[in-house]
Amino acid sequence: MIKTPGEFELIARLTAKLRHGRRTILGPGDDCAILAPSRYQQLMTIDSIVEGVHFKLEWITPEALGARALTVNLSDIAAMGGVPSACVVNLAVRPGLGGRFFDRLYAGLADAARAAGVDIVGGNVTSADALAITIALVGDAQRSALRRDAARVGDEIFVTGTVGDATIGWQILDGKLFARGSSRKFLIDRFLRPTARLTAGQKLTRIDPLPAAIDISDGLWQDLGHVLERSGVGAEIEATAIPLSPAYRAVVGDDLEFALSGGEDYEILFCLRPGHTEAALSRRLGVPARRIGKIVSGRRARLIGRTDRGKLGAPRLGGWDQLRAHRGP
Amino acid sequence: MIKTPGEFELIARLTAKLRHGRRTILGPGDDCAILAPSRYQQLMTIDSIVEGVHFKLEWITPEALGARALTVNLSDIAAMGGVPSACVVNLAVRPGLGGRFFDRLYAGLADAARAAGVDIVGGNVTSADALAITIALVGDAQRSALRRDAARVGDEIFVTGTVGDATIGWQILDGKLFARGSSRKFLIDRFLRPTARLTAGQKLTRIDPLPAAIDISDGLWQDLGHVLERSGVGAEIEATAIPLSPAYRAVVGDDLEFALSGGEDYEILFCLRPGHTEAALSRRLGVPARRIGKIVSGRRARLIGRTDRGKLGAPRLGGWDQLRAHRGP
Repeated sequence: MIKTPGEFELIARLTAKLRHGRRTILGPGDDCAILAPSRYQQLMTIDSIVEGVHFKLEWITPEALGARALTVNLSDIAAMGGVPSACVVNLAVRPGLGGRFFDRLYAGLADAARAAGVDIVGGNVTSADALAITIALVGDAQRSALRRDAARVGDEIFVTGTVGDATIGWQILDGKLFARGSSRKFLIDRFLRPTARLTAGQKLTRIDPLPAAIDISDGLWQDLGHVLERSGVGAEIEATAIPLSPAYRAVVGDDLEFALSGGEDYEILFCLRPGHTEAALSRRLGVPARRIGKIVSGRRARLIGRTDRGKLGAPRLGGWDQLRAHRGP
Repeated sequence: MIKTPGEFELIARLTAKLRHGRRTILGPGDDCAILAPSRYQQLMTIDSIVEGVHFKLEWITPEALGARALTVNLSDIAAMGGVPSACVVNLAVRPGLGGRFFDRLYAGLADAARAAGVDIVGGNVTSADALAITIALVGDAQRSALRRDAARVGDEIFVTGTVGDATIGWQILDGKLFARGSSRKFLIDRFLRPTARLTAGQKLTRIDPLPAAIDISDGLWQDLGHVLERSGVGAEIEATAIPLSPAYRAVVGDDLEFALSGGEDYEILFCLRPGHTEAALSRRLGVPARRIGKIVSGRRARLIGRTDRGKLGAPRLGGWDQLRAHRGP
C-alpha cells in the first residue's frame, strides 16, 4: 500500500530500536518478518483498539496505551495456555498526533512485549481519521491448548482475580460513575493497565483432564455463554461467589451487573473436574482463583442466590444481550 | 475487547461458512486459532486498507474489496518467495454498512483465500468511523526467503509485469485522469483487482545465488530505494526499459512518473547475477520479466536515457520524496 514519506519515516523510526530474541530471523524492514520454525502448535489472534470506541487519549498515557494494545492480545494467548512469541502491529494514524506521541506509544508497547517475551517483528502505518492499534500475535502451545469447547457436565467453574473493576474504571473515566482515593485509582488502573494471565493459563495446561478456558474480556456472563455454546452445556453461577474487589464494593456495592456484564476484565474463566480447592488452585496458578459455579446439562446459564436485580435471576443462553452491553465511551 | 451483540453476531455469521485445510487445527470461534507446526521458517506480515484513504466504496464491489485486502498481504509473502498459509482478519465497521455488505466482502475474501491456499483462521470486529480491513498473514518459506538486503554490485534488475497501471486506474476513478474503453477497464482493474505474484516469487527462490526481491506496492522508485538502502548499493535504471502497458501509453504517453512513483503495482522487483535473458526468466517465472537496469556501487539511483521530465534525471538515494508521493483519493 503506497505510503507518504512521513509514514515511512515514522515506521522506520519506531521499529529501529526494537531488539529481538533468537526465534526472530528477520524483524521489521522487509516485506515480511522471518521466524524460525517452532515444533509446537501455533496460536494466532488479532485484536484492535480504536480511539473514541475503546479509549480516549485524555485518559491514558501513550506508553500505557501501547502496552494495553498488546495486553488485550496477550490475554487471548493466555486463555489458550500459550506462550506468546511474536507480533505485527498496524497503526492507523490520524492528523494531530506527532512523532513524540508515537515514540512513547511504541516505548510502552516494546516494554510490554519484552516483559512477555514477545518480539515485535513487523509494523505498518496507515492514515485514518481515528487512531487505531491493531496487533496480530502468534505463540506456542507448548502443551495442549485450552479451548472453549471442553467444558463437561459436573465441571466446577472458576475465575481468576476479581471481575467488574475495569468497566467501573472505564465509567469513572467517562464521568458516569464517581469514586475517589485509592478505590478510584485501583479501578481506573484495572481498566487502563490490565494484566494478561499468561502464567495462570500456562499452569492450567498441566491439569489433567485439560480444563476449558476463556478470557472474560467481553464480560463474565457473555464469555461464559461462549463456553456453554461451544461445549453444549449449561451452568449454575452462585451470585454470592462472584469475586468482587473492595474498590468495586466501595463504588457500586453488591450490584452484580458490572461484574457479570462489564467486560475489559482480562481474567480467565475456566472449568475443570471437581476436587480442586480455591486455595490449592490459587497457589498453583499464582493468582487468586474463585469457584463461582458448576457446569450442568441443559444449555442454559442460571444465576443462583441473592441478587438485587431481578433481571439477572434467570438469563437464558442466547439471551446475553438481555444484559445491557456497555459501549463507550 | 467488549463487543455489542451485533458485533458478535456479525463475526459469527461471517466466519461460520469458512472451510479449512489440514494445517488448521482450530479456526475462528475461540480466543486464538490453532495451527499445526510447520517445519519451515515462518513469514509474517500485516497490512490494512482504509476507506477514504485507499479506496472509496463507490469504486469497488464488496467482493473485490475483500479479495484486494488479502491480495496486498499475499504480495508481501510473494516478494519473500513464500507459500501463504493462514490469516486473521480485523474488520473496523462503521455505521451504514449492513450485514449483506459484509457477507459479500467475506465471500470475496474467502474466494481469494481459497485460490491462494490460505485459511482464514480468526476474525475480529470493532466499531469505527471508517471501514478498515486489516489482515495479518503467515506463510512458509519452503526455501530460503528472498530479502531486500541481498542485492550485489553487478546484479541485473528485473521487474515483473508492467508498472504504473494501478495508479493511473486510481486516478481515473478519482476523476484526475480520463480514459475510455478497454484501456480504462484494464487500468481500473489493475488497481481494484491486483494479482499477487506468488508463483513468480516461489520460482525465484530456486535461483542460485538467491535474488534480492521486493514488491513494488509503494512505487518502483521508492521500493528500489528500499533495496538499495538495505543492501548498501546503488542502481542505474534505463528509462526506456521500464515496462509500460499499451493502456498506460494510451492514457499518459511515455511520461514515466506514474510508472516510477505510482505505487499499488503488486509486481516484484528483483536483482540477480547477470546471465538470465528476459525470455528465459519470463518462461521460468510464468509472468513477463523485464530487465530495467543494474546494481552499481555508490548508494545512489540514477535514471539513464531519455526522459521527458528533468526532475527524474538524477534522483538521489534518500530523496525518494522528490517524487510526489500520491495520496488519494
